[in-house]
Amino acid sequence: MTEAFRYCGVIGLGSIGMGIARSLLRAGLPVWGYDRCPRLTRDFAEESHREVADAVERTRRTEVLILAVVDAAQVEDVLFGNGALADALPADSVVVVCSTIAASAARRIAARLDEHQLLMLDAPTSGGALRAASGDLTLMASGSEAAFQRAEAALAAMATRLFKLGTEVGQGSQVKLVNQLLAGVHVAAAAEAMAYGIRQGCDPEQLFEVIRHSAGNSWMFEDRVPHLLAGDYRPRSAVDIFVKDLRLVLDSTREAAFPLPLAASAYQLFEQASAAGLGREDDIAVAKLFPGIELPQTTLED
Amino acid sequence: MTEAFRYCGVIGLGSIGMGIARSLLRAGLPVWGYDRCPRLTRDFAEESHREVADAVERTRRTEVLILAVVDAAQVEDVLFGNGALADALPADSVVVVCSTIAASAARRIAARLDEHQLLMLDAPTSGGALRAASGDLTLMASGSEAAFQRAEAALAAMATRLFKLGTEVGQGSQVKLVNQLLAGVHVAAAAEAMAYGIRQGCDPEQLFEVIRHSAGNSWMFEDRVPHLLAGDYRPRSAVDIFVKDLRLVLDSTREAAFPLPLAASAYQLFEQASAAGLGREDDIAVAKLFPGIELPQTTLED
Repeated sequence: MTEAFRYCGVIGLGSIGMGIARSLLRAGLPVWGYDRCPRLTRDFAEESHREVADAVERTRRTEVLILAVVDAAQVEDVLFGNGALADALPADSVVVVCSTIAASAARRIAARLDEHQLLMLDAPTSGGALRAASGDLTLMASGSEAAFQRAEAALAAMATRLFKLGTEVGQGSQVKLVNQLLAGVHVAAAAEAMAYGIRQGCDPEQLFEVIRHSAGNSWMFEDRVPHLLAGDYRPRSAVDIFVKDLRLVLDSTREAAFPLPLAASAYQLFEQASAAGLGREDDIAVAKLFPGIELPQTTLED
Repeated sequence: MTEAFRYCGVIGLGSIGMGIARSLLRAGLPVWGYDRCPRLTRDFAEESHREVADAVERTRRTEVLILAVVDAAQVEDVLFGNGALADALPADSVVVVCSTIAASAARRIAARLDEHQLLMLDAPTSGGALRAASGDLTLMASGSEAAFQRAEAALAAMATRLFKLGTEVGQGSQVKLVNQLLAGVHVAAAAEAMAYGIRQGCDPEQLFEVIRHSAGNSWMFEDRVPHLLAGDYRPRSAVDIFVKDLRLVLDSTREAAFPLPLAASAYQLFEQASAAGLGREDDIAVAKLFPGIELPQTTLED
């Protein structure tokens, strides 16, 4: 490196990306952020006491570029399309892709970055908005040792658990998809179980308390059911995220035909919820699909 | 009570019942056990330094009778059928039904016990064989305050968590069925996810380690996947238990029609596994249904 000062950049300042950007800032790293929503870009610039600058200009002095956008199409657009940031990044910089994407997409993106002499880490996250905010994400990462080394300080700032899953890009994304299969099924099951219990006359608060301490518990049950109990469907993670992620899971085996009956059932529920206009609500809103029951009412002020 | 010495009895010395009986023994309670398998009855008599005695004779001096049999048909057979223990129990004794049964069956049994001037606690368990053995079960219990008081010492010995879910028999069983819906879906999802990951080239041990620390985790994933990784399908809880329990869940809403898509998918997987001859294997053996993959091989000696 010939320059003393190299930035970390975070593209996508949604619930995960903003948490990552703030965690890097707290760790004392020089970080800039960009979101296609100008307000979010401005908010983070203010927090970090920097001026809003042109993303391409900043990228020319960026060593670690973290992408926390929604899907592979957005990753490719940022790097090679409208954003064209791959042209601006200095050689040997590393692109850390945190988005949940297909393993095949991760490999395709890595190959294109390689043509630009850029490294890639395939590094999907788990833990959600709260853990992103506190720098306590879990990362399911794969890539070359050189890429891990280049990104080391940033990874340490954003995650308390870094799983190095191999040297091949795609291995991280594949493990993330297995995780999403489970997470999606568990959210749908939590909604179904609470709806069923309410239908059968159980007290919802009591049900939550018992199951949380029993063999029916899951990370998602414990995390999402409180939203349902509060009647609070503001999206920490939206229904449409699971429409997307479970579609990635189902698509990933389509060529070779492999049965995934539970993932398919859960996918149908999220699709149905999205079609019913609930796509942007919190994912536990799938509970609203179940007929003839009264879910807990909101206690939120408008 | 006119007698100074009243027994606790445990009927059904399977993986849960034997653990309960031993926990009562450790707590210093006078306890006898019975199983239709004579060897189990003998084993527990030896452990407790008692002679094997006629169950009906022991029952005449029993104040708390705990049933850890498989289903409602067995409960009714023990109490009112071949066993006829309801005729032998002293008035005002309490029958603690730990089996997973329909709420309607629990109410029917309580009504018949009431005709014999007997109390009933509807007290299904959660936690499995290990927690039963250590006296650390969770109990989802309902019944009259008098029934809870009569059984107090026994409940304290077998469970570290006692949820009192109401004064009506049936409330405990209903909460247990909600728990079983989730537990069954989570076991089936764990099997599907591990099969999918292996199919996609993930290392199974690594997959377990990552997901256990991620949002895809569940109590069942963490408990059952180690059996799969060890290739060890000896039944701690068998496939056929979930065939039975998920059938109870699905049957419970059949009259009023309520959709349970994930429970139905999981039920089909357990049915399919049972039909394939896996009914008495550990429930994670549903993973064997997934085609074209190699599951970890057993490291057990024959």
